[in-house]
Amino acid sequence: MTDPQRVAVVGATGYAGFELARLLLRHPQIEKPTFFLRDTSAHVKCLAELFPQLRGMGDAPCRPFTVQAVAASGARVVFLATPHEVSLELAPQVLDAGLRVVDLSGAFRFREPDTFSAWYKLPAPARELLEQAVYGLPELYAEALPSARLVANPGCYPTSVILGLRPLVDAGWLARERGIVCDCKSGASGAGKEPRRELHFVEVDENFRAYNLFTHRHTPEITDHLGLGLAEIIFTTHLLPVARGILSTLYVWLERPRKSSEVETLFRDFYAGRPMVRLWPAGRLPELQHVAHTNFCDIGFVLDPSGERLVVVSCLDNLGKGAAGQAVQNLNRMLGIEEAAALL
Amino acid sequence: MTDPQRVAVVGATGYAGFELARLLLRHPQIEKPTFFLRDTSAHVKCLAELFPQLRGMGDAPCRPFTVQAVAASGARVVFLATPHEVSLELAPQVLDAGLRVVDLSGAFRFREPDTFSAWYKLPAPARELLEQAVYGLPELYAEALPSARLVANPGCYPTSVILGLRPLVDAGWLARERGIVCDCKSGASGAGKEPRRELHFVEVDENFRAYNLFTHRHTPEITDHLGLGLAEIIFTTHLLPVARGILSTLYVWLERPRKSSEVETLFRDFYAGRPMVRLWPAGRLPELQHVAHTNFCDIGFVLDPSGERLVVVSCLDNLGKGAAGQAVQNLNRMLGIEEAAALL
Amino acid sequence: MTDPQRVAVVGATGYAGFELARLLLRHPQIEKPTFFLRDTSAHVKCLAELFPQLRGMGDAPCRPFTVQAVAASGARVVFLATPHEVSLELAPQVLDAGLRVVDLSGAFRFREPDTFSAWYKLPAPARELLEQAVYGLPELYAEALPSARLVANPGCYPTSVILGLRPLVDAGWLARERGIVCDCKSGASGAGKEPRRELHFVEVDENFRAYNLFTHRHTPEITDHLGLGLAEIIFTTHLLPVARGILSTLYVWLERPRKSSEVETLFRDFYAGRPMVRLWPAGRLPELQHVAHTNFCDIGFVLDPSGERLVVVSCLDNLGKGAAGQAVQNLNRMLGIEEAAALL
Amino acid sequence: MTDPQRVAVVGATGYAGFELARLLLRHPQIEKPTFFLRDTSAHVKCLAELFPQLRGMGDAPCRPFTVQAVAASGARVVFLATPHEVSLELAPQVLDAGLRVVDLSGAFRFREPDTFSAWYKLPAPARELLEQAVYGLPELYAEALPSARLVANPGCYPTSVILGLRPLVDAGWLARERGIVCDCKSGASGAGKEPRRELHFVEVDENFRAYNLFTHRHTPEITDHLGLGLAEIIFTTHLLPVARGILSTLYVWLERPRKSSEVETLFRDFYAGRPMVRLWPAGRLPELQHVAHTNFCDIGFVLDPSGERLVVVSCLDNLGKGAAGQAVQNLNRMLGIEEAAALL
Repeated sequence: MTDPQRVAVVGATGYAGFELARLLLRHPQIEKPTFFLRDTSAHVKCLAELFPQLRGMGDAPCRPFTVQAVAASGARVVFLATPHEVSLELAPQVLDAGLRVVDLSGAFRFREPDTFSAWYKLPAPARELLEQAVYGLPELYAEALPSARLVANPGCYPTSVILGLRPLVDAGWLARERGIVCDCKSGASGAGKEPRRELHFVEVDENFRAYNLFTHRHTPEITDHLGLGLAEIIFTTHLLPVARGILSTLYVWLERPRKSSEVETLFRDFYAGRPMVRLWPAGRLPELQHVAHTNFCDIGFVLDPSGERLVVVSCLDNLGKGAAGQAVQNLNRMLGIEEAAALL
Repeated sequence: MTDPQRVAVVGATGYAGFELARLLLRHPQIEKPTFFLRDTSAHVKCLAELFPQLRGMGDAPCRPFTVQAVAASGARVVFLATPHEVSLELAPQVLDAGLRVVDLSGAFRFREPDTFSAWYKLPAPARELLEQAVYGLPELYAEALPSARLVANPGCYPTSVILGLRPLVDAGWLARERGIVCDCKSGASGAGKEPRRELHFVEVDENFRAYNLFTHRHTPEITDHLGLGLAEIIFTTHLLPVARGILSTLYVWLERPRKSSEVETLFRDFYAGRPMVRLWPAGRLPELQHVAHTNFCDIGFVLDPSGERLVVVSCLDNLGKGAAGQAVQNLNRMLGIEEAAALL
Repeated sequence: MTDPQRVAVVGATGYAGFELARLLLRHPQIEKPTFFLRDTSAHVKCLAELFPQLRGMGDAPCRPFTVQAVAASGARVVFLATPHEVSLELAPQVLDAGLRVVDLSGAFRFREPDTFSAWYKLPAPARELLEQAVYGLPELYAEALPSARLVANPGCYPTSVILGLRPLVDAGWLARERGIVCDCKSGASGAGKEPRRELHFVEVDENFRAYNLFTHRHTPEITDHLGLGLAEIIFTTHLLPVARGILSTLYVWLERPRKSSEVETLFRDFYAGRPMVRLWPAGRLPELQHVAHTNFCDIGFVLDPSGERLVVVSCLDNLGKGAAGQAVQNLNRMLGIEEAAALL
Repeated sequence: MTDPQRVAVVGATGYAGFELARLLLRHPQIEKPTFFLRDTSAHVKCLAELFPQLRGMGDAPCRPFTVQAVAASGARVVFLATPHEVSLELAPQVLDAGLRVVDLSGAFRFREPDTFSAWYKLPAPARELLEQAVYGLPELYAEALPSARLVANPGCYPTSVILGLRPLVDAGWLARERGIVCDCKSGASGAGKEPRRELHFVEVDENFRAYNLFTHRHTPEITDHLGLGLAEIIFTTHLLPVARGILSTLYVWLERPRKSSEVETLFRDFYAGRPMVRLWPAGRLPELQHVAHTNFCDIGFVLDPSGERLVVVSCLDNLGKGAAGQAVQNLNRMLGIEEAAALL
């Protein structure tokens, strides 16, 4: 019989994979994570060979990936830290083997198969899979997680934007015809580990730039889970000269004037009992450093004197709450473990 | 008889003052800048004692400031690199001595005296001074500079925002009732040289934060020179973990759909013959590194497919085009020298 | 009766204090740390008011410091995260109240009282205190810690240098008459939190400089615990543009040629069973990132082909193994808890 | 007849090439630099297509490289900003066409052909070429430059180390049997522009590491031009998380005690009349920021109280005095132009 505390990770070779390994190795309720690599040409026996930072932190055995090997490892939950197209292929196989999946790619995050294929230029996932997939934002979908078989771990930018806006959207407070501007800034680890000219240290250091305007693939993920149309939002992304962290400055117009205390109450009620969202009092704003190397999403706001123009600032660590930390938070919910286990 | 190529600088002890000194020392048409310090307790004889970077770059003699000493130095143009309240006091005295002034503070940038006093919590400047003051943005007010006696050198953020939006405002293309969002990010040298907790290396490094929302003193300077009301614009500022540079992401809605080529033409026509504004082709955006250590303001834009939502990105070096470089550009215009002298 | 798992921290207002709080709050065997502040003018009730990063990480109550209040808190071990002169005054009082002390200052690190007073320009500590003080480097003095009443937590540079050289010194392998060169580089958090001109972001960013040559107060701490004379070592320190971390490049000449495998064996034997020292195979060197945000000291070396010139590289996180992490490691040893508890 | 102020640059596609272009474009005595690219597949017409920073700075035409085309351009001096193996091939061809060459690669820096082939794993250059090549360190070989046909522009590390030590070596002050330790640190632009895993922003940011111990190719260049044996020097290199700059900490033992004033005088006399070396008074040390974006080499020192242990700190911008700036300084000397032209 399989042990419920055993997990496996497929493809932990990037930055989010490293962070996931680090969290799982220190997780008090997880007995023994096994790491499966698809490219076995390197004959890596232990994840610390790829990430020297992991030496001395516990046994992190690596094995060549096959569905059978994963099933035989005793894992009940399998993390796919794989590219979109690989997750698209592997998730059904792993599910068919009776295992639960937390997928860190974009493959299963959308309601409609076509949305994925249109924005990612890849084949559409099966509709049945999307129908059973739970979007792994525990603050919104906590009750679906304990029984979820396939969890689509959210994108880093969407986590930040959705958590910052959802209370306002749900309350119907927004003058939606005015539009919403989401000016988002991310550290360079969000762009992945592959060497590229524009990620060379000299190109990022002392630099700052906007990228992918009106074309970023996280756009439909945001509108999907906010229930907005694409025309209602302008979402821009910028590259910060830091390794980790996302800060989103969110501009909304309210349909009628509000007081700061009302906004504060709205957010407090919405996130009551959510240990991973930290709210700031009206007029005080979170900073990237407050959330770096944590799983928190910090949210603050400033309302202008008219009471109609509201700026919400939402920030998180793109490898923590924006990726690996959130995956562990989802795991905790799936296994009925305390939500913040291994995350503080 | 005074020599037209002689200039003086009062108060060159901060980052902008250093940059101004560096530019003047290499200016081929400026014979001999003299630096006047107000706090003479340090008995500084040469600016290189304050800025070792200036050693070997030329003679930069320092003297205690008095209006008489400045007048006796043979300078015809005097730069005030002094705090707002000091400029407020000194500018009239220096003007009365028959010298021309380029003031780098905020004291003389507004049309109405009350605007300054309300936002800076300082006494209002004399209305007569404001009436003769030229706002030193050479791309807009080039023809007023040759005869200007008092030039108010613009703020760093306003330079970036005004240059990015003015062609659109002047053309009447904006759906102004939709509002304008100016999400601006600056390096830390813009906050000055005084040691403060929030400017400690450890507090800025690997960090990013918004500050002074709805209260930044550059707000009325922007609206004043764009001819907008305060309610038409949301202007936010953020601190980047870089030393130099401002990048402003400007969100506007157009009153009717436009093509990218139309926007491109609008900007090209507006900035024709302006050597310090560099325009990017539609869809390509400037970066902070392109303008760091230069006097350029680089402007690019992306128009969304609907043709109605336009994002303009404007960037510059806050010590260059945002302060000292612009001051030298103003000097060049005032003296009839080639506009880009010492600035390439 | 007091609870053995209760601890107190005095003066947790700096960077090391923050890190100590963070580690104690997640320590599975520590029930409830209480934080005592000496300057009570701020009426801080909770440490998260000083460090927003700590919000949501557990209850961190703050109280005004008195020896009586600390004793009444039920703490058995008290961390002094206080300036040297304050530790000098408080440690005897806290010890007299029957509590054990881990002092993070430099006050009790030397064998001779005069060494401290000469290098720190402060009164000498009592000789009896120095005689009972244990230098809190668990890799060297593990057996003394369980019964220690006063632990002098080492300096950040000395931890790095001593761990890198002690195996060679103890083995008598060094040609000591040739001298030892310790070229050490530290991140800016090692210089403390107080705003100072030379720690302003703009002054540290994109910069690098040596400081305190031949005068650094960590010099006698290094020679004391290596058993060397001051003339046998050149110790230099440099400021890196990073927040955290120390990397020491250590140059020694061997008294006779050795093979890399011999050096490797020497270090492996010396650090056998020490979970917080990670050794690298010959020719591979650790990097700052490998140890940032950890309590590890990583050590590697390269031997030149002659076998007589050896370069050892030792690195650690100055707030982790160089300060707060080491303090917790000492605590664990003092309480008989697993040495790495809360540190992985 | 060719115009003496015309120059050409071959291969300006890397960081040093960009800096060279920037300097030549603002050089008051250079009329019109032409840029020749070897890989013509990109059909680049203007260097600003590769380096947007150059837009608006002057005409920088690009043409496909052939020796004939270079000769026809009217250039008298040709800069080779090409890889070692390419310079090895092109330099003789360009010389044969009657043009003078400043080569920025390592191909012609050594006295012995074998030294190059052994350390660079490439064919040896012709001995006749090495015999006529001038090592382009103007502070040492100024008189050879006006008539030089082939100038080997020095490496960045060697420039810093040689300038810091040569006065001491020439004076015979060193206890050479004690050895010399050169602990050098460089910014990431020194490693070139090609994307590589270890130069990814995330791998360099907040990191620091030593590399190439006992194997760095600049080692024999240093010993060659200091007249030392390889066994007399330990030269180590480290990667700093900055874009530009090298700081070398140089440890020497003197053969008899000296006073600081003697050391100061030695250096002052040695570098009298050298505008690009800036000396610091005894006990004060230069920093990376002092030299970034300049062509200066700044040198300071601290002598320990015994008068026998001396630490010299030498720093420069690796793209300035360490590469492109020095190349222009050599050009100035070759053409009889003021040495600092375009470099202040």
